[in-house]
Amino acid sequence: MTVTPLLHLSGSEHLQAPADDELQRLDAYWRAANYLAVGMIYLQDNPLLREPLRPEHIKNRLLGHWGSSPGQAFIWTHANRLIKAYDLDMIYMSGPGHGAPGARGPVYIDGSYSERYPDKSLDETGLKKFFKMFSFPGHIGSHCTAEMPGSIHEGGELGYVLSHAAGSVFDNPELITVACVGDGEAETGPLATSWHINKFLNPIKDGAVLPVLHLNGYKIANPTILSRIDHEELDSLFRGLGWTPIFVEGCDPMEMHRKMAVAMEQAVLEIRAIQEQARSSGEAFRPRWPMIVLRSPKGWTGPQELDGKKIENFWRSHQVPIGDVKTNPDHLQLLEDWMKSYRPWELFDDSGAVREEIRALSPKGDRRMGSNPHTNGGVLRKDLRFPELRNYEVPVEIPGTTEKENTYPLGELIRDLISNNPGGYRLFGPDETASNRLQAVYETTKKAWMANFLPEDLNGSELSRDGAVVEMLSEHTLVGMMDGYLLTGRYGFFHTYEAFAHVVASMYNQHCKWLEHCEEIPWRAPIAPWNCLISSTVWRQDHNGFTHQDPGFMDLAGNKKGSITRVYLPADANSLLAVAEKALTETDVANIIVSDKQKHLQYLTLDEARRHVAKGAGIWEWACNDNCGIDPDEPDVVLASAGDIPTKECLAAIEILRSEIPHLKVRYVNVVKLFAMANPKDHPHGLSDRDFESLFTPDKPVIFNFHGYPWLIHRLTYNRPNHNNFHVRGYKEQGNINTPLELAICNQIDRFNLVIDVIDRVESLGSRAAHVKEQMKDEIHKHRAYAHEHGTDAPEINNWRWSLGRSSCNV
Amino acid sequence: MTVTPLLHLSGSEHLQAPADDELQRLDAYWRAANYLAVGMIYLQDNPLLREPLRPEHIKNRLLGHWGSSPGQAFIWTHANRLIKAYDLDMIYMSGPGHGAPGARGPVYIDGSYSERYPDKSLDETGLKKFFKMFSFPGHIGSHCTAEMPGSIHEGGELGYVLSHAAGSVFDNPELITVACVGDGEAETGPLATSWHINKFLNPIKDGAVLPVLHLNGYKIANPTILSRIDHEELDSLFRGLGWTPIFVEGCDPMEMHRKMAVAMEQAVLEIRAIQEQARSSGEAFRPRWPMIVLRSPKGWTGPQELDGKKIENFWRSHQVPIGDVKTNPDHLQLLEDWMKSYRPWELFDDSGAVREEIRALSPKGDRRMGSNPHTNGGVLRKDLRFPELRNYEVPVEIPGTTEKENTYPLGELIRDLISNNPGGYRLFGPDETASNRLQAVYETTKKAWMANFLPEDLNGSELSRDGAVVEMLSEHTLVGMMDGYLLTGRYGFFHTYEAFAHVVASMYNQHCKWLEHCEEIPWRAPIAPWNCLISSTVWRQDHNGFTHQDPGFMDLAGNKKGSITRVYLPADANSLLAVAEKALTETDVANIIVSDKQKHLQYLTLDEARRHVAKGAGIWEWACNDNCGIDPDEPDVVLASAGDIPTKECLAAIEILRSEIPHLKVRYVNVVKLFAMANPKDHPHGLSDRDFESLFTPDKPVIFNFHGYPWLIHRLTYNRPNHNNFHVRGYKEQGNINTPLELAICNQIDRFNLVIDVIDRVESLGSRAAHVKEQMKDEIHKHRAYAHEHGTDAPEINNWRWSLGRSSCNV
Repeated sequence: MTVTPLLHLSGSEHLQAPADDELQRLDAYWRAANYLAVGMIYLQDNPLLREPLRPEHIKNRLLGHWGSSPGQAFIWTHANRLIKAYDLDMIYMSGPGHGAPGARGPVYIDGSYSERYPDKSLDETGLKKFFKMFSFPGHIGSHCTAEMPGSIHEGGELGYVLSHAAGSVFDNPELITVACVGDGEAETGPLATSWHINKFLNPIKDGAVLPVLHLNGYKIANPTILSRIDHEELDSLFRGLGWTPIFVEGCDPMEMHRKMAVAMEQAVLEIRAIQEQARSSGEAFRPRWPMIVLRSPKGWTGPQELDGKKIENFWRSHQVPIGDVKTNPDHLQLLEDWMKSYRPWELFDDSGAVREEIRALSPKGDRRMGSNPHTNGGVLRKDLRFPELRNYEVPVEIPGTTEKENTYPLGELIRDLISNNPGGYRLFGPDETASNRLQAVYETTKKAWMANFLPEDLNGSELSRDGAVVEMLSEHTLVGMMDGYLLTGRYGFFHTYEAFAHVVASMYNQHCKWLEHCEEIPWRAPIAPWNCLISSTVWRQDHNGFTHQDPGFMDLAGNKKGSITRVYLPADANSLLAVAEKALTETDVANIIVSDKQKHLQYLTLDEARRHVAKGAGIWEWACNDNCGIDPDEPDVVLASAGDIPTKECLAAIEILRSEIPHLKVRYVNVVKLFAMANPKDHPHGLSDRDFESLFTPDKPVIFNFHGYPWLIHRLTYNRPNHNNFHVRGYKEQGNINTPLELAICNQIDRFNLVIDVIDRVESLGSRAAHVKEQMKDEIHKHRAYAHEHGTDAPEINNWRWSLGRSSCNV
Repeated sequence: MTVTPLLHLSGSEHLQAPADDELQRLDAYWRAANYLAVGMIYLQDNPLLREPLRPEHIKNRLLGHWGSSPGQAFIWTHANRLIKAYDLDMIYMSGPGHGAPGARGPVYIDGSYSERYPDKSLDETGLKKFFKMFSFPGHIGSHCTAEMPGSIHEGGELGYVLSHAAGSVFDNPELITVACVGDGEAETGPLATSWHINKFLNPIKDGAVLPVLHLNGYKIANPTILSRIDHEELDSLFRGLGWTPIFVEGCDPMEMHRKMAVAMEQAVLEIRAIQEQARSSGEAFRPRWPMIVLRSPKGWTGPQELDGKKIENFWRSHQVPIGDVKTNPDHLQLLEDWMKSYRPWELFDDSGAVREEIRALSPKGDRRMGSNPHTNGGVLRKDLRFPELRNYEVPVEIPGTTEKENTYPLGELIRDLISNNPGGYRLFGPDETASNRLQAVYETTKKAWMANFLPEDLNGSELSRDGAVVEMLSEHTLVGMMDGYLLTGRYGFFHTYEAFAHVVASMYNQHCKWLEHCEEIPWRAPIAPWNCLISSTVWRQDHNGFTHQDPGFMDLAGNKKGSITRVYLPADANSLLAVAEKALTETDVANIIVSDKQKHLQYLTLDEARRHVAKGAGIWEWACNDNCGIDPDEPDVVLASAGDIPTKECLAAIEILRSEIPHLKVRYVNVVKLFAMANPKDHPHGLSDRDFESLFTPDKPVIFNFHGYPWLIHRLTYNRPNHNNFHVRGYKEQGNINTPLELAICNQIDRFNLVIDVIDRVESLGSRAAHVKEQMKDEIHKHRAYAHEHGTDAPEINNWRWSLGRSSCNV
């Protein structure tokens, strides 16, 4: 292995600090931003302190986080300087998004805020509103929420700023994302591993992430780990993670401006030199990208002490450093002194606008970080060039008679999405693209890999410097990357193990929340769908055992808004394709698609599948015998299923019923959109009660064979017609090392138990039915014994095919 | 800041490698372990290869992970040597638990396996069963599952081996836990941050973790990141994380034995020297603990190639390296050659037992890692010394008239649990012990902190070298530590933010799965409860906004087995205490306790609370007027609630109803155990249908005001009597920056909407009711307007108290 040498910019260590007058201007900008931050937290009136501060000027409820705000404003100040100097395409992500006041001030100064919210104008009236509306009921949040221009990363839940940043610069070669990493956030697992984004960033085709670790020193009530290890350890840590740290440490503002200006410029020049070297040579290598460690006091420039207790540079400045200003005149005076320490009279003109010479330090137009179009990525998003689905169709002549890996054609589709949408489509997965049978993508692209290569990689590893597939054993990092990619206007697809999808449960929740929030923000343009294929599903975890059996991820979707959530359970390959056609082209939604990767029976032609997906749930006529002229009435029983394995077992049960109890009128309903079951007032996929009843009858027993935990179906249908007759089977936490059939039997989703369920619930079936029930019990016993002896299912199980053809009337 | 010097053991670099004959013995042991690993994956007969291998000797279905098995067996081999040499109390945790064959072989060799499972005896008959039963339907799993003696870490879901290891050695000063970290696992977020466990391990009172990073090179289909960075980076990374790496790299077995023997001895001696230095001086410091980096080929000693494709030292050896041995005679021969390369005739005696001289390399009795009692921690667990609850009782004379922080007395209780159970009780939380009002614990202990101190820590940081409180901004690490602490026989309590409890959703699932699995393993002794206090709940996230509002963590519990899951929603401080008394003393359960930290109204005396918790749900007589002799019949309506805020709003609604519509007969039911609502066949807390009906009536409208997402109640009660009349209110994903009341109004759990719900659902209330409904709408309008003007709720909301006293009959 060879060491890629660190770049040594000629003379970069000797970069000139700005002259004193420029430093003074930078400091004025920073003072303005800090003043705005304090004002947001405290004031509802008298925004320019034109009169002495009185209790009624203070908000009744003081909210917001001062602690990291000045540090974030400091970074922003210096980023602006570099954007202007080098005409950079740069955006900012706030890891410690609670410190939004520090970022929102600059967005106001650069005019972006007033453009989106004209009543928060750049004058005294607008300023007063801008202050009051911060974290005020009915108005904007206290984090870098979706309402904030320039933000695509709220920073409410911590841990994702670097993975979001990486996603934003993938295939965006000119973009530099400054990612402020809080030292509290840095303790989270997701953040700790996301420093490895540099193993996936290609200096030719991707942009750059410039991490700024903000060593603020404290969390809510504790020091942070990284601020309390030795300098040598910290330096060693980041070099070990593949970064070249540049340290900016201190507390004296002017001294710090000088250091930061040099550090930022050095970082930007190194990034440019790296890119130049890679791009001019055409040889992508892994540079030791620069990063900045900014060690500055928590609550910097705020009150030093309060009633003898340390505030600045201590955890007590985390939120509102002086709480009782409304009732304590001395403390009110302290606040006034604090705010005046920024010399507002130097910062605002007579109209109350931030002075022109300070505003002039912001970049212009789209270069403003508050207005950079990458931070409203929907405006950059191109329509997806979606290939003709017919190319991937799996031929199906007689349903249920041939097998195919359901996900393989999806891989072909994704392959063509990647090639049709160059630089705009990526596939993310922990380590299982081939295992999940999506390997057709390798016909057009490879896996991105910027770490070291070995000769054997040429034969079987599918690695390359510029692949559109990203694999890392961190679901957090992958989903974070995909989030960042989508939010900057591109398309992505994530696939993972069902049981371990829970690892990113909170990320799913947070992305849904972002989209839900955006529904109320008209200027946010629609973004591409968040896609998650859940494969290696519960019913094929018979061999990995109990810990790998958990189909509960779908349940999360039920708690989020129906306008955002989509859950699909296609039973075969064409259904999965038809789902993809619908799901991957919708915007502002989060799709969960459940489809196992192994071979499964095929049922529907592509046309049938498209019609089926359009409805969401429907009768598969060829599986029914309730419409064969015996009697025009309703069936005796409805069997229904959602998911690949449950569908197979359900159909096998129907075959037994139709053979053994031929006079029983059976209807079969397949559900491909989970939320077809939901009430239409709760979800756009919801069937009307009338349609629901036309499928599930007003009063007949319904045996529903579900992929997931059975209660999810009850939860969706409790107020539906005929719900009292619903009997739902699903995974009920029974499993160990089993065969596939045995696992199904343990949870009673297998064909034999379904037959028993029918017999138990349909009245007047006669003595024949009792006999069949005993037969079924024998079958169960026999098959478990077979499994325990042979370690596999019997051939008649593995080779079972639907034998009744396309005719529904062969009774 | 001073740098704590690395220890330099005199001459440790020059430790003597074992003599050749000892190396040969070690190698024989390792070959035996490897032979066993291969046998487990492949054979169902002919375990000693006494006859030529034939297809019928091969299992029908080949499962198991060969890739990391030889490396794990290698570590185990050398750990045994050190245990014997230094009489160590040492256990092993397998991060890559899929490689269980590598660990299960040694557990068989040391006799632990046969002691637990006598039919897997140390002879040919037992060996045949031992092979066949591996990953075989109806038998043991393919990971280090709970069935495996010596394992408390299954390694199925990746990421937690170091945090589990840290938990195991907390307050176990003599224990050394060897934690094998897979290089795939090392990419996960939870693992990446868990290297920081060394900031919490005290060399005086805690034992030591010896991480062995197994640089196996590959995951399922990819190289691993840490195996593909430069040596300098790797070394720098671990030094930066505070460890002293010792590298053992190569592939020649004898050379590697030599290096590993020295490295392990050096590591153990350094650990002992560190402990000696700290313990003799009484001064706890943070050493740069040793760790080992073992770079060995994936699938080491397995087939080099198959059909011209690279196997050993490549990803293709991840699982079963040769798949078709049953049908391909050449490949069958390859397998036989491979197995014979271990020279089984040297390893087993005539009876088929592993030879005595090989078994003699294992430690004896409890020193065997397969039998160390720490790996069945329930046997070491002492009964919890639980203090008298009366000490913490909050006086309540008239219900609903005084306020108190509900969690404060719980903090006092935990304080005394810590002091009553020294070295056996720990409190874990991300950064919020004080914020969650548990600060009374600091009267008896502090926060563990082994990183650097600053002078200001003395005044307000509550840090110390030996605290029983562990705070780190990584829920993953904390829960992992607690898991490890519980599984080794101690007690712990975790508390966290409600919305971000989802971060550890999969860890909750996995711990429940472990406990569920243990129900079928009689030799596993019961362990202490897994406790999670969910505080900073949804209804008090009006100020943090939408992203901090998610009460869905409870929903997870509904999908796990009722024998394990417990969810409590105490409405006041004494209820929380009574819950704690029950919950914290139960074994083999996972408790979720939802209780906000802010001030709330108090309702029950401790005696009342104890009775209430015993039942799980009950009528609060003083809030009802359905039993006041007006009419002996049932009420007109039942109002019910679960959770602190929903209860307050529900009672306020009742007060309005009783004042405005006095002839309406209202019953109030409080639910403190969520699963009281469940069917008793699904959960031991479930009320009988008869009791359920006696609370909720057979046919009257029920308005249920729930803390969480409302559908959870429907999901639990869909098959209960009177469910069709249940109308559930809860969080329905509506919120932004609000006041508390406004947030309640958005989701219609507020008093005014509840009154409207009652009026809408109770028939024949007359025109007065219609008027009241209009009044309620006015109230809602008025209060939202107030909130938007003032930023707070009106004083009459904040100061609302129950005015109807203890008499239920003041109509």
